[in-house]
Amino acid sequence: MPYSKTDETAINTIRTLAVDATFAANSGHPGAPMGMAPVAHVLFNKFMTFNPKNPDWLNRDRFVLSNGHGCMLQYALLHLFGYALSIDDLKHFRQVDSITPGHPEAHDTPGIEVTTGPLGQGVANAVGLAVAQAHTAAVFNKPGYDLVSNYTYCFFGDGCMMEGIASEACSAAGHLQLGNLICIYDDNHISIDGDIKCAFTEDVSKRFEAYGWHVQHVDDGDNDLEAIEAAIAKAKEVKDKPSMIKLRTTIGYGSKLEGTGGVHGNPLKADDVKQLKEKWGFDPEKTFVVPQEVYDMYHKHAAEGAAAEQEWNKLFEKYASEHKDLAADLKRRLAKELPEGWQNKLPSYKPSDAAIASRKLSETVLEAIHDVLPELMSGSADLTGSNNTRWKNAVDFQPPNLNIGDYSGRYMRYGVREHAMAAMMNGMCAYGTIIPAGGTFLNFVSYAAGAVRLSSLSHQRVIYVATHDSIGLGEDGPTHQPIETLAHFRALPNMMVWRPADGNETSAAYYMALTSKGTPSILALTRQNLPQLEGSTLEKGIKGGYVALEDKEADVTLVSTGSEVSLCLEAVKTLKEQNLKARVVSMPCTEVFDAQPKDYQLSVIPDGIPTMSVEVMTTLGWEKYSHEQFGLNRFGASGPYKKVYEKFEFTPQGIAKRAKLTVDFYKDVKPLRSPVNRAFQQLI
Amino acid sequence: MPYSKTDETAINTIRTLAVDATFAANSGHPGAPMGMAPVAHVLFNKFMTFNPKNPDWLNRDRFVLSNGHGCMLQYALLHLFGYALSIDDLKHFRQVDSITPGHPEAHDTPGIEVTTGPLGQGVANAVGLAVAQAHTAAVFNKPGYDLVSNYTYCFFGDGCMMEGIASEACSAAGHLQLGNLICIYDDNHISIDGDIKCAFTEDVSKRFEAYGWHVQHVDDGDNDLEAIEAAIAKAKEVKDKPSMIKLRTTIGYGSKLEGTGGVHGNPLKADDVKQLKEKWGFDPEKTFVVPQEVYDMYHKHAAEGAAAEQEWNKLFEKYASEHKDLAADLKRRLAKELPEGWQNKLPSYKPSDAAIASRKLSETVLEAIHDVLPELMSGSADLTGSNNTRWKNAVDFQPPNLNIGDYSGRYMRYGVREHAMAAMMNGMCAYGTIIPAGGTFLNFVSYAAGAVRLSSLSHQRVIYVATHDSIGLGEDGPTHQPIETLAHFRALPNMMVWRPADGNETSAAYYMALTSKGTPSILALTRQNLPQLEGSTLEKGIKGGYVALEDKEADVTLVSTGSEVSLCLEAVKTLKEQNLKARVVSMPCTEVFDAQPKDYQLSVIPDGIPTMSVEVMTTLGWEKYSHEQFGLNRFGASGPYKKVYEKFEFTPQGIAKRAKLTVDFYKDVKPLRSPVNRAFQQLI
Ligand SMILES: [Ca+2]
Ligand SMILES: [Ca+2]
Repeated sequence: MPYSKTDETAINTIRTLAVDATFAANSGHPGAPMGMAPVAHVLFNKFMTFNPKNPDWLNRDRFVLSNGHGCMLQYALLHLFGYALSIDDLKHFRQVDSITPGHPEAHDTPGIEVTTGPLGQGVANAVGLAVAQAHTAAVFNKPGYDLVSNYTYCFFGDGCMMEGIASEACSAAGHLQLGNLICIYDDNHISIDGDIKCAFTEDVSKRFEAYGWHVQHVDDGDNDLEAIEAAIAKAKEVKDKPSMIKLRTTIGYGSKLEGTGGVHGNPLKADDVKQLKEKWGFDPEKTFVVPQEVYDMYHKHAAEGAAAEQEWNKLFEKYASEHKDLAADLKRRLAKELPEGWQNKLPSYKPSDAAIASRKLSETVLEAIHDVLPELMSGSADLTGSNNTRWKNAVDFQPPNLNIGDYSGRYMRYGVREHAMAAMMNGMCAYGTIIPAGGTFLNFVSYAAGAVRLSSLSHQRVIYVATHDSIGLGEDGPTHQPIETLAHFRALPNMMVWRPADGNETSAAYYMALTSKGTPSILALTRQNLPQLEGSTLEKGIKGGYVALEDKEADVTLVSTGSEVSLCLEAVKTLKEQNLKARVVSMPCTEVFDAQPKDYQLSVIPDGIPTMSVEVMTTLGWEKYSHEQFGLNRFGASGPYKKVYEKFEFTPQGIAKRAKLTVDFYKDVKPLRSPVNRAFQQLI
Repeated sequence: MPYSKTDETAINTIRTLAVDATFAANSGHPGAPMGMAPVAHVLFNKFMTFNPKNPDWLNRDRFVLSNGHGCMLQYALLHLFGYALSIDDLKHFRQVDSITPGHPEAHDTPGIEVTTGPLGQGVANAVGLAVAQAHTAAVFNKPGYDLVSNYTYCFFGDGCMMEGIASEACSAAGHLQLGNLICIYDDNHISIDGDIKCAFTEDVSKRFEAYGWHVQHVDDGDNDLEAIEAAIAKAKEVKDKPSMIKLRTTIGYGSKLEGTGGVHGNPLKADDVKQLKEKWGFDPEKTFVVPQEVYDMYHKHAAEGAAAEQEWNKLFEKYASEHKDLAADLKRRLAKELPEGWQNKLPSYKPSDAAIASRKLSETVLEAIHDVLPELMSGSADLTGSNNTRWKNAVDFQPPNLNIGDYSGRYMRYGVREHAMAAMMNGMCAYGTIIPAGGTFLNFVSYAAGAVRLSSLSHQRVIYVATHDSIGLGEDGPTHQPIETLAHFRALPNMMVWRPADGNETSAAYYMALTSKGTPSILALTRQNLPQLEGSTLEKGIKGGYVALEDKEADVTLVSTGSEVSLCLEAVKTLKEQNLKARVVSMPCTEVFDAQPKDYQLSVIPDGIPTMSVEVMTTLGWEKYSHEQFGLNRFGASGPYKKVYEKFEFTPQGIAKRAKLTVDFYKDVKPLRSPVNRAFQQLI
């Protein structure tokens, strides 16, 4: 299709908006928006289907800007097409409390699908969005009802391509044959350090072919709109592979510094802005100018998107009459509601039940709930048998031609790709129809830290099944034994870190993880068996912390988590022999405990007696809940787990010894306040 | 060269030792050692030069087992060749306090070069070892003195190949044209989840070709010793590219379950052990058997290695007479000593000096010391201009044919590859002649968490230059603003986390980072300017915490770090207007402060008055040093940094308000103990 002067004007409007916004903010990245404006124009105006008035429409095409620093590109497009993002919002780019922050944040800005900026995350999110599309289509589409058919488009740059997470995700996408995923590589030869020949001389196209992708090249991404259009059209036709289009562009196209690192991360100079506006027929005295013809062109395409949604809504109504249950299920999922009564499936335990490892208890939960929660999609980073993440009759999510599963399958084999797993789960969750749960060893959740952080920041209901949670994993030794990991993720805002002590607490952890619509969870689970506690219940567990053993005359409170709670209960007996009385608090999730009313918190960790924490890893952070801390501020050891526990004195005797020292030490302090009694509230 | 029956016996001895050790431990991974025994035999006995009696000899060939779970392969080899690892040590595989832990740990076991097990780390370490070799050769080799010419060999498996860190490192290695790096890919089609066709169907060879590697295939790695030998010989000849040999092997070769996931992570069953010992002519009633001919064969090769070292020592003596300074420098580096008086180059500052960002102060340190510390090799993950890691006349470490540097260069362009950067630095440090320093934003040190952890665990003197350390980075916003990061790494054992408040503290941080031979450091540095403090000195800074402003009549102690120390000093004035007296403690490194004598600690954070911490990120962990905490337990905001600080009340007024609440809250508590006063010592 021939391109007109208006197309050119539209492209230059995107560019000048990016130039003006970064200039006004005196900060930001004009180069990528200027270089990618042509492909963005072609993609958004010729190919993508979306309704700016309803950014939540299920079957919209998804767009991910993996090189998120170029977000003025996306903000400009959102404004021009008529999303709820005004010209004033563009003027407040990178200002406090604006909806146009320095990198795109999904929960801040209508039309932003996922939060990007940390390089490589976006493309892995896009793989997750494409997985979710394929799965949702396989589950809900029926003959005559092609309800779910959207494409996922992603832009990425050299920075993303250098990040390991992108390699992991793109290898997975090739394996999974995600035909509706189309990525465009902004091949501009520039990264922050200048010409990429300093660090990055590999053959990216060949790498993607090795992953099993369909690869095309466009040589002149600055001007050849027809070639861009043809490449995207071709990519859409390829249905058995993800597509990558390597697009040669000029960073900062139009600037005096075009093609150099000078336009990457700094606003243009005033005289440079002037010359390019004059060159493109814009009034150099004016800023944030949008010619009416550009609005007209884009609003026309937006109206087509709105009409497409209308059509879809009609189709869905008809579908709902023919496939009542499926339609109801889809609606329910999109509202983030769980099926009524699902929680009755959660297992409960009596103290007389057998001792079981919490990784196994987690498996029992998954076995019990997977039928009633069809949106739950489990998986593992190549540790299925160790993470116990797979229910017995699970079907793998796999391309059908491999004969090991199909796209309706709800079990993901992520491979040994923890970081991509986490980012793919963020994308899968962002799609709107899936609750992803993915397993690895707790120690290797750290490999995924970059993406786990974005689960929290972007409010994704993602569940990390993190087994082998301590030195209790035994023989694998210090390279695999977490010390710092729980402190790390407890310090991360909007993350629930659960370390259940038994079966009822494991059920509680899942209850909270599944019902917290905007908060991810890490479930830290043991390899070794744990006894079922007296007095644990799901109701107590979901308070985050509760009294597992009360004694109104106690000399000391022991507060503990996971495998150490039962050790503390044993220590109470040891202390009794020394005429000391102790009460025990189980604290499976400090974040949830923090959200309880203060009087409840004080009933659990009361004034008047000292509290000692017991957790077999770093003590860092436990000072918040205890006067003294028994932990492990060093690396662990390789050996049978009971021997390792003994080596570090994590025995009833080791606990009792320290509890006695704690009691003695605080005898003279009056009043002895509970550590939860504080002088002022924290900013949260 | 023809292979004899003894070669076969040697290979089967390695296999049976791995089988016996995992059986005795009832834990571990027999499959990889059994599959890789042939290539290990050929490599160690035909190609590698090493002296088991001196595992520290500089020019030894390096070996890295990236699939570290197969460590019984390496332990068996070390024993058989005569390293200080006895047959009893093999019998104590995976037992507490043995030198044969579940994964290889460099600091535990003679002959282990780097600590591996977390997948992908080893191959990235190997790239670092090869970088160090190329650099050390370029600096020290002279005509007639090929002092440094060793190869780095690495084994890796499918798991490593799926990890993003391996992709990053191998892409970097291809760019750097590291000809002395030879990797062998154990292509056994099995990972923990079973056949890799479930998750990993890419063309690994093609991927490595895309990275610029020389690639060969060996089809029968189980039996074809000649082909293995030919491939390694060919790889050694290729000097302008790293080499990868894809070796088809059978996991658990010889077991009834060979070729299946069943032999990956579980000991063999007794009857299986019996049949394979019978098959190979070993007495099935005996365990840990080594035929004398095997010892003889391997000890002969070890003797050749010892002789090679003798030769080398003679060469070095001659070198020392001709190149006195270089020889002395090399000896000094290998002893981990710094040049005498180097510390006099560290800059010092007066309060009247200009306010400067600590990232810039760090640059000034590097500029000042790079001449006297030739072992210092700086670099950045594509943020050179932001991290300020490059001194003005630095030469890039680059392959000479790119015309942008050479191998003697001391500045690494790691690309946007944080995780590989960290692991490469671990390898570079392990080589023995380099102190690596690498830059990224503090927030993206989290991308490297897996490797940072191994810097700590394996005692590597590695320096992370982590700029843009807080919401003070401003406009880039929450995706880039660390909240949890310092807590994460403070919780990591054997890691110094520095957050200097001014120029003298920045010098102190470098002083400690460079003189701590077995401890890595993270230097958290600001983007924004910081005033030079009254009363800061290097001598005070290296205590980790000190009194920046004393007041013997103080009502409250404010303890703070980095950019917030000067805010606290301002807050003292605000408090004075409210008739409250405050003293200020600067705590640039809690880990170092923890190592001070208790009476010093109590002089800094005394009994009797409350202490409030002030740091513009998570409060988690500050309870250890303060009664109350002012921090930020939520994500930040995008905007000019002063506005962001104001939004969260990080102003003198915001601090003073909370300090007053703290004073009031603790008025009635007697005695009010310093938080550093504890009931018992932690296990460290
Ligand atoms: Ca680029
Ligand atoms: Ca394998």
